Parts: sequence; C-alpha cells; structure tokens
Amino acid sequence: MYRADEGLAFLLRYENIAWYEDGVVKILDRRIYPIRVAFVVCRRHEEVAQAIFDMVTQSGGPYTAASMGMALAAYEARELPDGEYRAFLKKAAYTLSHARPTTVERMKRVVERALSVLEQELEKGTCRAEIPERLRDDAIARVNENYTRYDKIAVHLADQIPDGGTVMTQCFAETIIGTLLRECRRRGNAVKMICPETRPYYQGARLTASVACDMGFDTTVITDNMPAYTMKMKQVDLFTSAADVITMDGHVVNKVGTFQIALAARYWGIPYFATGTPNAAHPDMASVEIELRDPNLVTESMGQKHTLPGVKGYYPAFDVTPPKLVDGIVTDKGIFSPYNLKAYFG
Amino acid sequence: MYRADEGLAFLLRYENIAWYEDGVVKILDRRIYPIRVAFVVCRRHEEVAQAIFDMVTQSGGPYTAASMGMALAAYEARELPDGEYRAFLKKAAYTLSHARPTTVERMKRVVERALSVLEQELEKGTCRAEIPERLRDDAIARVNENYTRYDKIAVHLADQIPDGGTVMTQCFAETIIGTLLRECRRRGNAVKMICPETRPYYQGARLTASVACDMGFDTTVITDNMPAYTMKMKQVDLFTSAADVITMDGHVVNKVGTFQIALAARYWGIPYFATGTPNAAHPDMASVEIELRDPNLVTESMGQKHTLPGVKGYYPAFDVTPPKLVDGIVTDKGIFSPYNLKAYFG
Repeated sequence: MYRADEGLAFLLRYENIAWYEDGVVKILDRRIYPIRVAFVVCRRHEEVAQAIFDMVTQSGGPYTAASMGMALAAYEARELPDGEYRAFLKKAAYTLSHARPTTVERMKRVVERALSVLEQELEKGTCRAEIPERLRDDAIARVNENYTRYDKIAVHLADQIPDGGTVMTQCFAETIIGTLLRECRRRGNAVKMICPETRPYYQGARLTASVACDMGFDTTVITDNMPAYTMKMKQVDLFTSAADVITMDGHVVNKVGTFQIALAARYWGIPYFATGTPNAAHPDMASVEIELRDPNLVTESMGQKHTLPGVKGYYPAFDVTPPKLVDGIVTDKGIFSPYNLKAYFG
Repeated sequence: MYRADEGLAFLLRYENIAWYEDGVVKILDRRIYPIRVAFVVCRRHEEVAQAIFDMVTQSGGPYTAASMGMALAAYEARELPDGEYRAFLKKAAYTLSHARPTTVERMKRVVERALSVLEQELEKGTCRAEIPERLRDDAIARVNENYTRYDKIAVHLADQIPDGGTVMTQCFAETIIGTLLRECRRRGNAVKMICPETRPYYQGARLTASVACDMGFDTTVITDNMPAYTMKMKQVDLFTSAADVITMDGHVVNKVGTFQIALAARYWGIPYFATGTPNAAHPDMASVEIELRDPNLVTESMGQKHTLPGVKGYYPAFDVTPPKLVDGIVTDKGIFSPYNLKAYFG
C-alpha cells in the first residue's frame, strides 16, 4: 500500500521492513539507515528473534518481522511429522513474541494470528510447501490492516495540528508518521517537523527525520537535551508519539525520553497526543516490564567508547508517561481520554 | 592546588586546562578526552579565541584559556611601541572575551583583570619579556581564587546531600564537581553520581564522569533522554549544575538540557541547586544572548553524519531555567533564593 510511487519513504515499503522469501527473512538494518542500506539475513526464526532483540528493526518493524519469522519457522519445519510441525511452530511463536520483554503482549497477538492462519491452511489442505507464503500473505494483510487503522488515526491527529504548525515527535513512530504527513499533505498543511535524535540508536535523526524529509516536509533534528527549550523557541504546537504499551488506566509506555518531553509540553501548555490502541492485557503498569538493555550501549556512540573504564551505564529502553501528562490517546476510533480507555472497546 | 597527588582528576591540573609557555598556549582538547589526550597549540591569541569558540575547552576552561591568551598576546606584542602595545592588548582582550556570545560579561572580567595586571607591571617597570609570565602567574592566582571560592560552594552544596545519596549533574561543572566530591570524601559520604552524556559534545560522559570515576565515586552515564525516568528509578536525591550566567532576577543559563532536567526534578520533588555567582551585569534575560552553534553539529555524532541531506539541525548551546524551578543558588557565601540575589552582594 505504501509504495515509493505514493511518495512515502523507503522505510515503509513492505520489503524494507521485513520480508520472507525462499527460506530467508531479510530485515532492513535500521540501526545504520540512512547512512548505509543493508539487510540482516535470517535463515532460522531464532535469528529473527535475535534481530528484534538487537533492534535491527524498531517501532512497528518487530511486529512484521515476527510475522515473517513465523513464515520462516513454517519453512524450517516443513519436513517434520504433523505433531512436531505444530509444536515447532508453537515454540517459534513463543521465541519470537518474547524477543523483548515490554512488548510481549502485543507480540503475542501477532504470532497467535499466524498460528490460527496456519490451522486454517492445514484445515484447507494447503500443502506444507505453500504455508510459508500463506503466512507471509497474511503478514502483509496485517500490515495493510494496520495501515488502514493508522490512516484513521492520522485523520484525528491531523485535526489537532494548526495550519503550518510545528510538530515535535519522539523516536520513530513508523506508520503514523507516514500516514500523518500524507494526511497533512492531502489537506495542504505544510507542517514543520522537529525530531529529537533519540539516543543511543538515533531513530529520530535517522528514521523519523528521513521519512519526513523524504516526503518533502521541513524537518529539523535536535539532540535529546533540547526538546524543552526548542518547544518554546520554535513555537511547537503539538507533541506526539507512538506507544509500545498503553495501559487501560492511561499510562503510555514509549521510547525513553517521551516522559520528559511530555513534562516540558505540559509546562508550556502544548498538548501531548499519544497514538495507538489501549492494551486490554495491561490493566495498569503492574503487568508491564520495562526492558533494561545492555549498559554498554550508552557508554559509547557510533560504536566508539566515550567513557573511562569503570564508568557504568544505565539503559532503560522505555519510560512511562502518566495519564495526567497525556492530553489524549489518538486511536482509529477517535481521541480518547487516558482516564476512560474502556470507551475505546465499548 | 588541584594536583594529581590530591587524587583529583587530570582535567583539573592547571597545565591541562590551558597553559602559556614560551610564546605558546596549549589547551587540552576536551572534545576528545578521555579517549585521546591531545592538546591544541595556539601561537596567536586569535587561535585561542577560535579554540574557545570551537569548544576545545568548556565549563571553567575558557576563562583560564582567555587569561593565558592575554599572556600570549603580550608575547606577540612584545616588540611594538608603547601605544601600539597597549592597543594590541586591548584588542586581544576584546577578541578573547567575545569568542562566545553568552559568556561575554564573565569573560570581560577575566580580560580586564589581565589588562589591569599589565598596567601594574608596566608601572613597576617590569620588562616586556617578563610580562607574559606575570600574566600567567596572575591567571593561576585567579584559578586558585576560584578554587577557594568553589571549596566554599562545595561545603554548602555537600550539606544538602544525604549520606550515600545520589546526585544528578548536567554537562561538565568542572571545578565544582571536583571540590564537591572532595568535600564528600572528606565527610565520608560515598555519593553516587549520575551524569547525562550531554550531546553533542558528550561533556557529561567524557568529562564529568571521568572526574567522578577517577576520584573513586560510583559513576553512571545515561543518555540525555533518560534523566526524568532515571531520577525516579535510581532515587536521585539532588540535581545540580553550574551556570554560565545567573541573572539578578534568578534565571539560570546553562548547557542546554538543564531546563528540562530541572522540570523533571520539580515533578519528582527533587531539589535543583545551581552553583556559581549572580552576574550583576545581567539584571534579567534581556541582556543575555543565547549562542546558536553550527547546526551541522547535531546532524552528526562522533564526526559521522547520521541524517539525510535536506534535514536541518538546530543547536542552541544553552537554555534558561526560570527561578521558579530553582531551589537555590549555591554560592561561596551560602545558598540564596533565586528571588533575592541582591542579598549575595549585600
């Protein structure tokens, strides 16, 4: 759906997110894009899980990668007897969904869908050799479903942006950035984008800014210590982010840094809108595990160590923005109060 | 005064801040320390001003570098006739003090002191050849004066840190970090230090963390998007920073990022203490120019570009924390309310 001919970025083409073909999953290495375009090639589903853990792909990418990983698992298992075949796929589903702790619940939905497609295909008598492609087709259908959902989110979010307004983002909100900017373009709203770089992986500088610039929007990158001051100086109208988890009681778990930008937004009276879908599996934060990543990743940059031996690092991958700092959760069904997310399902 | 034998860091030895000798000023290149130890060598005072602009040295370093630059200017001018000699030194004073816009007023005090020492020496009949060394001696005396002042600040600041407490800093507070930690050690208070890395130059990771670790304290580096979340998770007791300017009405101008950390501190009920001296030349922010640096510095890291062509950068070097977010200004005379800084001079 989002192909280059629509002017949307390279990053959002299916085959550049994650792609299964002929016993191989290729994942665009977003850790080095746009400086270099390279793909991580996985021949076993465990390698896909490892790539997700290693943050080869981020934002929406891991969900597509996990679906493609299920297609790969079906290829790996193709010659196993029936019972073992199903057991192999179930084990793969577990491995892929548990690649990173904070998003297990969302990931489970992805792999469980693959398992149910598998059962349907087996029911229909689809031959083993064709199953991986059927799982890939379903993965694409799922991406398209998400894109459709995000098209709706984009409309509601675009409604909140004044003409020629300035939008600050955090990290890489993948699809919503593409759909939001496409919606803005459709409305003739030449919004300006300000992207904090998002250390240590620089997703804001490398991914969000690339998509926005590629789509022809005025795009400015700042370092992660600048959002609060920049909001004032560049007259930011709105702060928006995606969310890795939205708990039913209105807490937004997203890339570390979101919380302090939300604090600054509240200080200046700028609204913060998180996008996504409340997660019914998480009534509150008690069930959410915040992933702690390798501390060495923060005591280096661009692969170069910049601290003395003996200096420690601390790397929480996400932080938590409480509902009182969230102006609205923008969903495909409209904007909901973080204090009444049951209404989304009602 | 702060030599290695006192266990204080390499960074705070005079000769590693900036040093005039035999017609040359050598400045430790803090942009690459501690990964490499290298010095920028200046043979003309304009090169010293350029080095200050280029942020070869930061925090307290530029003030010492400017003093040493005045010694170098006296060497450069040594064979000029009397009137031209004085004019050359005055011009050098202007050039050195205006290397960076936000700190002009503080810099002026440094170079004007050098000019007055010059006049005293000429009055005494000191020969031209000896003047550069006299200016260097005075620069060292001034550093010692500052160290003495900071020793007093350290006592007042250390009073605010609970036993075994955790302190978050911002950027490189140079002397105050050394004196504070020395005071903590004297009291047997094994404080823990958390240093945001301070992009784009990583002063927190490279300089502050090096000093603290070198002095034997538990030291953790985080990226600049983590302070707000880390404050909670690591139970930070106090946030402190130096200040490039403290206006008489209580605004703290310091390395960009300070403001948003102060906001987070206020959110969690953690006190923020800025250290330094109110600047009588700045009644309020109207007279302070916030330096905008080369935007290319934020669209790259470690010398590697990480954004697409067409993506812009924005790089305010400082931000402004309003008095309502400042719990106290810690000076050599004690802790003052940001709302009553006249009291410091009273």
